[in-house]
Amino acid sequence: MSTQAFHAMHHADRPLLLPNAWDHASGAALAAAGFAAVGTTSLGVAATHGLSDGLARTREQTLALARMLGDLPCPVSIDIEAGFSDDPGEVAEFAARIADTGAAGINIEDGRPDGLADAGHQAELVAAIRARVPSLFVNARVDNYWLSIDMSTPRSTLDRAARYLEAGADGVFVPGAADNATIAALVDGIEAPLNVLHLPGRQTVAELTELGVRRISTGSLLFRRAVHAAVQAAEAIRDGGTLPPGIPGYDEIQRLADGGARN
Amino acid sequence: MSTQAFHAMHHADRPLLLPNAWDHASGAALAAAGFAAVGTTSLGVAATHGLSDGLARTREQTLALARMLGDLPCPVSIDIEAGFSDDPGEVAEFAARIADTGAAGINIEDGRPDGLADAGHQAELVAAIRARVPSLFVNARVDNYWLSIDMSTPRSTLDRAARYLEAGADGVFVPGAADNATIAALVDGIEAPLNVLHLPGRQTVAELTELGVRRISTGSLLFRRAVHAAVQAAEAIRDGGTLPPGIPGYDEIQRLADGGARN
Repeated sequence: MSTQAFHAMHHADRPLLLPNAWDHASGAALAAAGFAAVGTTSLGVAATHGLSDGLARTREQTLALARMLGDLPCPVSIDIEAGFSDDPGEVAEFAARIADTGAAGINIEDGRPDGLADAGHQAELVAAIRARVPSLFVNARVDNYWLSIDMSTPRSTLDRAARYLEAGADGVFVPGAADNATIAALVDGIEAPLNVLHLPGRQTVAELTELGVRRISTGSLLFRRAVHAAVQAAEAIRDGGTLPPGIPGYDEIQRLADGGARN
Repeated sequence: MSTQAFHAMHHADRPLLLPNAWDHASGAALAAAGFAAVGTTSLGVAATHGLSDGLARTREQTLALARMLGDLPCPVSIDIEAGFSDDPGEVAEFAARIADTGAAGINIEDGRPDGLADAGHQAELVAAIRARVPSLFVNARVDNYWLSIDMSTPRSTLDRAARYLEAGADGVFVPGAADNATIAALVDGIEAPLNVLHLPGRQTVAELTELGVRRISTGSLLFRRAVHAAVQAAEAIRDGGTLPPGIPGYDEIQRLADGGARN
């Protein structure tokens, strides 16, 4: 699906609400439900394979998911954690393989298992991707808030965002920024579309729109809800309870294998 | 996990309620919720990979899932569709590879894309598995009702069940048998634990227990509910609605990667 269309979704009348998938069925079902684009959740990709998130253990699984989502009738953005390597050439090569699947964008994060990456090194990764795959929407994730590091002012986040944009990023993702004042300061201080994570009980999509956010991700929330709902359903069956109405039938799920076209 | 314990669960005070997983996270979450054993759903395995169910397309994915579920703290039974081959030796070899993952049992079905397998040939597949992996719980699925073939009396189902048991099956699974009289006739006429599929709106687990069923599967229902709940959550976020309480957090899902131990 055209990367151009995906770029444009960050500059439209309304922000892009990007629900995050973890396998083909979830991606196809979200596309069939009418969402304009689909992202991925690295926690979901890791957990479905019995692996830990954020430890660069899901390189092949991430690529396999990107290949599977290549048949969706909407743009797809792939979370590549921190790129699965410290080497800019290797990260750029991986991004190119992701782009080859038809993906319109990627997320790359500066969080590491032991804290934040050196901003200069992270900018090198972004620059290498930019040079290797010019059309891919590169969403640079800044993890100060996510990792609760250096949060007293948005200054550190703004500095990192500026470096990644200078290196060629198309957008900036700041998960974990929770209060209105911080989000407003990030919108003001970042010269590119700001992406935040939807946090249940905090701002609604309408409120984030009002604050000037251009892209709203659901992160791992849909995946966590799916696991939760499956266990709840098993418990309801065990206890003689009832299941919610509207569960798709066997045939409807089978049709998702055809790419989630709205048929 | 011991196949002996899994065999015993089919001959206990209460029937075995076997919820069906499709990836590591769902299996680990069901084990952590206290279910005594976990099965798999071939629809879920196929759909998560963007493939159609029942067409023998998921041999490697099924084996990979079995390997991932090998760390669960409870017995696991793997749905191998029709064995992914017509050759008894190949099917037995595949069952042996499944057993090598630590799985306690398998389901093998006599439904085929074009109807029912020849019962004699299906019995050969069962016999080959029995000879190759003596300890594995072999649940022979009879698909008359599932495929709506020859349903006027349970006779055809009983004949098939008898042949598969003679070939060495440990239990018989008849999905789609919906009314009490049919289920009672199957319980009476099958000389082994009867497994049925829980059908929403039909018998409760208590009613199936009363009818003498020894094992109750949820089939693809939990998977379909998971996909459904994920889309519902995305729509709720989009529309400013609220999400149900109790969704597990990031850390709780990360812990599932440690095998779903009840920690």
